[in-house]
Amino acid sequence: MQLLKKRILTDGKTISSEVLLVDSFLNHQVDPQLMREIGEEFARIFKDAKATRVATIESSGISPALMTAMKLGIPMVVMKKSTSTILSEELIQTPVHSYTKGTNYQLTTKRRFIDPGDRVLIIDDFLANGEAALGATRLVQRAGAQVAGIGIVIEKAFQPGRKRLIDAGFKPVSLAAIARMDQDEIEFEE
Amino acid sequence: MQLLKKRILTDGKTISSEVLLVDSFLNHQVDPQLMREIGEEFARIFKDAKATRVATIESSGISPALMTAMKLGIPMVVMKKSTSTILSEELIQTPVHSYTKGTNYQLTTKRRFIDPGDRVLIIDDFLANGEAALGATRLVQRAGAQVAGIGIVIEKAFQPGRKRLIDAGFKPVSLAAIARMDQDEIEFEE
Repeated sequence: MQLLKKRILTDGKTISSEVLLVDSFLNHQVDPQLMREIGEEFARIFKDAKATRVATIESSGISPALMTAMKLGIPMVVMKKSTSTILSEELIQTPVHSYTKGTNYQLTTKRRFIDPGDRVLIIDDFLANGEAALGATRLVQRAGAQVAGIGIVIEKAFQPGRKRLIDAGFKPVSLAAIARMDQDEIEFEE
Repeated sequence: MQLLKKRILTDGKTISSEVLLVDSFLNHQVDPQLMREIGEEFARIFKDAKATRVATIESSGISPALMTAMKLGIPMVVMKKSTSTILSEELIQTPVHSYTKGTNYQLTTKRRFIDPGDRVLIIDDFLANGEAALGATRLVQRAGAQVAGIGIVIEKAFQPGRKRLIDAGFKPVSLAAIARMDQDEIEFEE
């Protein structure tokens, strides 16, 4: 997605060869117009996926996921990061490791927001190690539903997330895949 | 806002005379179409407020705030809940007490996302005790900016939030104000 790549080059800040700061338009300050265009792009890409729900991981995935769900005309479900394991018939949980923070959390949602037979389109802001996205696929499957697709706004293609998702049987689609980066330059995959 | 009140009556669940569950359309599962209509309503209400930025508190405020910012054509800033005090020139923080969780957090944003002279429209999903909204006004003022307005999706009018905001010099506007509720009934203010 050219518009997004241009925005990353203009307003993104590479902190190191692994950390990209896009907090001026994606995950702290948010550009609603860009989010709308991202939502329309995901809706176009996944138009034949027969998705019945969009799911995302709080909180930076919410904006692109909401716009995608709006365009597709389906509900959006926020999977929450819980610090504790809660035993309840109502909830489904799966442990996820955050490499960014060096901590673990329980990705959590309510059973009644993912029905058996649902086709769930997972949308998230970043793909790096794939931990969060894989956790989301586990919750979907544990609810008896199917993953209709995985859409990622920015992929760090030099990290193992894509390979791990493909090994698990999924085909993630990213709008901007960064092949490599350092403090002076960001290079996208073809 | 009639559409919202109808939705609260249809899909909201009163857990007690103080707790209203709206997680099927507002803050766990989200109805994008309803969020769009809420955003348009806030944009209409605050059309003369000359807002230059929308600010909200993560994470349930993000959806209505994003739609409001989209309609107004201005950026949206997410104020984050941090568990720790961080000393940094880059950040502004203010302590907020969560009555729901019985804990305190530091409401946090980056200085560069609220400029001196900005007129900030604060949008949040709930107004109860007013702690979060008051915290948001403090961050805005600490940044040298002005509060252009406070828009609330659902107000629990039987709790002190409105009075506290008015005493602090603000005029909160809510789309649905609940006068009283119990397990059988929800009564809105006129």
